[in-house]
Amino acid sequence: MSDVSPLRLALVGGGPGSFIGPVHRMAAELDSAIRLTAGAFSRDPAKNAQAAAAWGVAPDRAYGDYRTMIAAEAAREDGARLVAVVTPNHLHFEVSKAALEAGLHVMSDKPATLNLAEALELEKIVVASGRRYGLTYVYTGYPMVREAREIVARGDLGAVRKVIVEYSQGWLSRPIEREDNKQAGWRADPAQSGVGGCIGDIGVHAFNLAEFVVGAPVERLCADVAAVVPGRTLDDDCNILLRFAGGARGVLIASQISAGARNGLTIKVYGEKGGLIWSHERHTELTLDWLDGPSQVLHAGSPYLSAAAQAASRIPTGHPEGFIEAFANIYRDFAAAIAGSGDGGLVPGIAHGARGMAFVETAVAASGAGWVALQGDGR
Amino acid sequence: MSDVSPLRLALVGGGPGSFIGPVHRMAAELDSAIRLTAGAFSRDPAKNAQAAAAWGVAPDRAYGDYRTMIAAEAAREDGARLVAVVTPNHLHFEVSKAALEAGLHVMSDKPATLNLAEALELEKIVVASGRRYGLTYVYTGYPMVREAREIVARGDLGAVRKVIVEYSQGWLSRPIEREDNKQAGWRADPAQSGVGGCIGDIGVHAFNLAEFVVGAPVERLCADVAAVVPGRTLDDDCNILLRFAGGARGVLIASQISAGARNGLTIKVYGEKGGLIWSHERHTELTLDWLDGPSQVLHAGSPYLSAAAQAASRIPTGHPEGFIEAFANIYRDFAAAIAGSGDGGLVPGIAHGARGMAFVETAVAASGAGWVALQGDGR
Amino acid sequence: MSDVSPLRLALVGGGPGSFIGPVHRMAAELDSAIRLTAGAFSRDPAKNAQAAAAWGVAPDRAYGDYRTMIAAEAAREDGARLVAVVTPNHLHFEVSKAALEAGLHVMSDKPATLNLAEALELEKIVVASGRRYGLTYVYTGYPMVREAREIVARGDLGAVRKVIVEYSQGWLSRPIEREDNKQAGWRADPAQSGVGGCIGDIGVHAFNLAEFVVGAPVERLCADVAAVVPGRTLDDDCNILLRFAGGARGVLIASQISAGARNGLTIKVYGEKGGLIWSHERHTELTLDWLDGPSQVLHAGSPYLSAAAQAASRIPTGHPEGFIEAFANIYRDFAAAIAGSGDGGLVPGIAHGARGMAFVETAVAASGAGWVALQGDGR
Amino acid sequence: MSDVSPLRLALVGGGPGSFIGPVHRMAAELDSAIRLTAGAFSRDPAKNAQAAAAWGVAPDRAYGDYRTMIAAEAAREDGARLVAVVTPNHLHFEVSKAALEAGLHVMSDKPATLNLAEALELEKIVVASGRRYGLTYVYTGYPMVREAREIVARGDLGAVRKVIVEYSQGWLSRPIEREDNKQAGWRADPAQSGVGGCIGDIGVHAFNLAEFVVGAPVERLCADVAAVVPGRTLDDDCNILLRFAGGARGVLIASQISAGARNGLTIKVYGEKGGLIWSHERHTELTLDWLDGPSQVLHAGSPYLSAAAQAASRIPTGHPEGFIEAFANIYRDFAAAIAGSGDGGLVPGIAHGARGMAFVETAVAASGAGWVALQGDGR
Repeated sequence: MSDVSPLRLALVGGGPGSFIGPVHRMAAELDSAIRLTAGAFSRDPAKNAQAAAAWGVAPDRAYGDYRTMIAAEAAREDGARLVAVVTPNHLHFEVSKAALEAGLHVMSDKPATLNLAEALELEKIVVASGRRYGLTYVYTGYPMVREAREIVARGDLGAVRKVIVEYSQGWLSRPIEREDNKQAGWRADPAQSGVGGCIGDIGVHAFNLAEFVVGAPVERLCADVAAVVPGRTLDDDCNILLRFAGGARGVLIASQISAGARNGLTIKVYGEKGGLIWSHERHTELTLDWLDGPSQVLHAGSPYLSAAAQAASRIPTGHPEGFIEAFANIYRDFAAAIAGSGDGGLVPGIAHGARGMAFVETAVAASGAGWVALQGDGR
Repeated sequence: MSDVSPLRLALVGGGPGSFIGPVHRMAAELDSAIRLTAGAFSRDPAKNAQAAAAWGVAPDRAYGDYRTMIAAEAAREDGARLVAVVTPNHLHFEVSKAALEAGLHVMSDKPATLNLAEALELEKIVVASGRRYGLTYVYTGYPMVREAREIVARGDLGAVRKVIVEYSQGWLSRPIEREDNKQAGWRADPAQSGVGGCIGDIGVHAFNLAEFVVGAPVERLCADVAAVVPGRTLDDDCNILLRFAGGARGVLIASQISAGARNGLTIKVYGEKGGLIWSHERHTELTLDWLDGPSQVLHAGSPYLSAAAQAASRIPTGHPEGFIEAFANIYRDFAAAIAGSGDGGLVPGIAHGARGMAFVETAVAASGAGWVALQGDGR
Repeated sequence: MSDVSPLRLALVGGGPGSFIGPVHRMAAELDSAIRLTAGAFSRDPAKNAQAAAAWGVAPDRAYGDYRTMIAAEAAREDGARLVAVVTPNHLHFEVSKAALEAGLHVMSDKPATLNLAEALELEKIVVASGRRYGLTYVYTGYPMVREAREIVARGDLGAVRKVIVEYSQGWLSRPIEREDNKQAGWRADPAQSGVGGCIGDIGVHAFNLAEFVVGAPVERLCADVAAVVPGRTLDDDCNILLRFAGGARGVLIASQISAGARNGLTIKVYGEKGGLIWSHERHTELTLDWLDGPSQVLHAGSPYLSAAAQAASRIPTGHPEGFIEAFANIYRDFAAAIAGSGDGGLVPGIAHGARGMAFVETAVAASGAGWVALQGDGR
Repeated sequence: MSDVSPLRLALVGGGPGSFIGPVHRMAAELDSAIRLTAGAFSRDPAKNAQAAAAWGVAPDRAYGDYRTMIAAEAAREDGARLVAVVTPNHLHFEVSKAALEAGLHVMSDKPATLNLAEALELEKIVVASGRRYGLTYVYTGYPMVREAREIVARGDLGAVRKVIVEYSQGWLSRPIEREDNKQAGWRADPAQSGVGGCIGDIGVHAFNLAEFVVGAPVERLCADVAAVVPGRTLDDDCNILLRFAGGARGVLIASQISAGARNGLTIKVYGEKGGLIWSHERHTELTLDWLDGPSQVLHAGSPYLSAAAQAASRIPTGHPEGFIEAFANIYRDFAAAIAGSGDGGLVPGIAHGARGMAFVETAVAASGAGWVALQGDGR
């Protein structure tokens, strides 16, 4: 708890029909440390006004475009100090840049940018701005993912040898991007999405999760990235072999044509002494399988968890939080860091964003071509 | 979405150390239809101020006692119009009464009152007030519980024959009420809790859930209600046989001394043609087992669900919501009803509150004495 | 392993159409310590011959009735020394009696007899005969049930406070006993089944399992035993409150009209420090939930299990055994005891059989009448 | 059921300390169609005699070596007609060859031979012999695996697009082959095991399972096959990208250094309309996830299953069979084919054996080298 005023938030994107915009709004406000104050929710004036009304934003602070909004809010004494970027990918860079250069902090939806070059440039802009930049790799906000990271870092499993991360969805099994499905539409369009389809949408989540939990960067990869649905330009299915610094082998699977799969993200990490399994479908649990004894199941909200994991739960064990709360954990840590009461160390930043873009570009470019190096160090 | 101002909320209770107070606050505000504006969070002035600061409530609207608060807010043009009651049980009646009589709506935590007499009196007060009264039987806010109710009501299972509802916790396995545990302390004290311990705390949830899903009232019961931990006055373990109108048999199990159990609420309903199982530990799923074909598993957020269940999810299937969102569903429906855009039909009311109190008093009084009638009709 | 000849087995019942007969045959022979040598499989000569041929029994040792068989086999130098009784219930007593009095050992399917009087008489006959009598309460043969018993006996959970045992089936949801279903037919007929329907068929399993794991007898019960399907004479649904010696409370649920349920037997035992859960649907696992630490999952076939549990697995962990192997564990222990290389301590005997009959008779007689004592001590 | 004499079986290998030998013995005899009659169980005379005594084999039919056994049994009127080969891999070829050339049928444990050349030669020998050759890819014997194959073959899922098969064990996480562990010892020795370690031991199971369920051969692969434990010669961890005829993409993961994993084999197959998941840990279930409706869970032993799946269960749904019974299904089908009452179509044969060897050799040779063709057609 804190006695300072809430951090004032402006949203770019997130108007009616958005999936992730409302999630940002709910997550940001959940803990009372952030309050939505302004927005450029939609280019459609009616929709823009509708969003503002629904979310308690004053009509005069629902702006027609993000540049106007940033200028106006930055100039106000009581203006927004944080901009959340929830547009399609191709706008992430320019909105983030504009906000940072106006002296505002930025929380961006993933991926960080449209491509690696933009991400590297944005990295410089963040540094130059002196402002904070966060990236909503939401799965790192789950308590038991944070516990998993702690367990690996503590060495409980011994040296890591094997990593399997799988993120399977089925919702793009049909070419619904040609059927006026807004969510599918921009994702299937390289101009808005970049060179990655599935890999940029959810592959980066899997990749980031693996590096987050393992605590070591991927150094090489061997990719099979494909557009399975006929007529689709961007990939919708990815199977990638990995090699981590330190020698651990891995497999990353991401798919949006695994028909019937909902949103199944699972990671398994095996070390010398045991393995851990976390699955989004049972996200309040973390299973530890040991070479030499009974399995253990750890439950979110329990007092025996690490401080990092405990801090990521609001209510006692057995009272499940979920996706919005995981998202909110990232916002809360970010707001605390801005307020000076935390280092925000668990909030993904632009380095992670650049890392994701390097992964996407490398895997897409090298698909089918055997093993290639993945540049960077996964900071 | 709506273009009206948010409903202004005042909280009675919920200061630092409260479990359920913050849940009410988060749930109420989640969908932007309600905003916390005032409170009498704690009798301790420092704690009261701390809660107000943390939650963005103006210092002058953090009141030292609920009576002052109700009077002041009712008198303000921009005053709170909804009071949430999150105190120990013994204050539910008087706070609810005061708020209603001041023309404010009330959302109360369960159980409705300290005893049945109060509940019946409160029922009259609600009617006389012309205001709305809601009760947070949170489990009825879960999408798949609402789907379960629809499935039974549609007759998919045929006539209901058997109901098993179990709510097992273990956190009162030791006499922690004697160790300065605030949550345990008031629950173990008849003056604050009423005649029911475990049965009043979680048994009423199980009871309400069963009647909610089955759609028929319990007419008779045969109870074994006991204080298992030595020295405890109120019950901590309950096993109750049920008979529903229409003839279905049932078993209700509620315990707070099932050591190791976290918050495991499960209901199974069997009809002539099949059965359903919902478990809080996997709350996004509803399993249907059929006499004549494969089992089915329905997932929250799916387009094939009933309208009632779909309306209770904010984000697509595979993105789990949780306890706070279930709570928020009750608040959202309640706010909509107040705003005139819904009938609030799924929001538990004072009739359900009275029903719960009748259940508690009957079961406690008749424990060990065989079968007795449960008065009322479970409206 | 042993260098003695296999124990020769004769089966009474088990001809074509039998469910449990073939299970006895497969289980008895699984470990090579017992060999089927003779049988009175069916009163229908063609079926009798068919069973003999299918199972490698010499034609002249397929007898037309059990009395002839017992006399002939007892007289042969190489005759059967063990008789397995797999008839409908009403014949259990007379076949067991005849075999024992002819000097043969007996393995009987449950329940032991048609009623308590028979069971008590059979108990005397067993003692007088000097032969061994075993009863296939098959669930006590599962490795993780034996582990559960060890865990409770060792005091790992502290004193037991609460027991929930549920055995739900749905296959009698329709009156298929009137549709020429052989399995349903005799079970629905009091002349063949006794006073218990569901309670005698599967309720006794649940009851025996509870006493086996808890290690204390049930002293009192309060029963709701009913025939739910119209026109049925014997019960098909049972809900019973229990009180164990030592004070633990319990609930026993058994049903054959839980439509859609397959064969779901689950037991939960809660002590002062933690609880255990075993479910037949995941029979290779035993879950321990602790008041003060992470949950544990123990896996059948693991080297960290108790000697009793380890002895009940044939193959390494992760290679699931099942119902037949659990049955075989009882036969194997029984054969070892007969051969003098084990005390057969885990094989249910006539005392457990009498106990089951007392349970059935008491619960049926007292259904709806509140709490009554259950005689006996659950040896 | 059948009125012919049981098929007489001789075992090569399987003496004390063997894991898979006793499984073959139990599985072969389970359904009374096969009876163990002879064996060359161990080169150690005492162990050989011990096995014979334990399993009811006459002392004079426990032979000191397999060549003597084959000659003697082939010459006897009542000799064994089926030889089961349960030795380490390097002997599979010569024992199988000797048995076939002596006019006996052969059931071999996997892999078929030490290398592809031997497998191709054995294929010719099988054809020339006019005898039957079966291979115990045991997982194809599970009812729900057979159901999965039927579902794909029927086109219920639409065209297959994606396959994930994972077989994770952890028991070789330490170099126990240097600690006198017999099972680990020969597996780690190329002279006894061939060029494949993990891939030859369990990778072939995963590979065969995938082709069995998908019904199409793997045409290309890209492998990462490694010896992770220091000092180990043969691989213990394999991650392989697959391409099936027809275009489906796949991933095959096999590991024996996934510490804590027991014997976790899982296959997921996604088509245009839905996906299926089968996991050995819950082998009695088959989950179908649909693009357009609720998930389904099919249960072994249910009357709604395909004939192929129903035939693979002995007892009703809810009464779990397991590994031994899956093994027994292969033996039963094999015995029926020999007896002329079935085509043995589901029994893996030498073609599948050769296929497995091609997979092992190709993957090992091409590990790290990108995509290569896999010869053969996966008959």
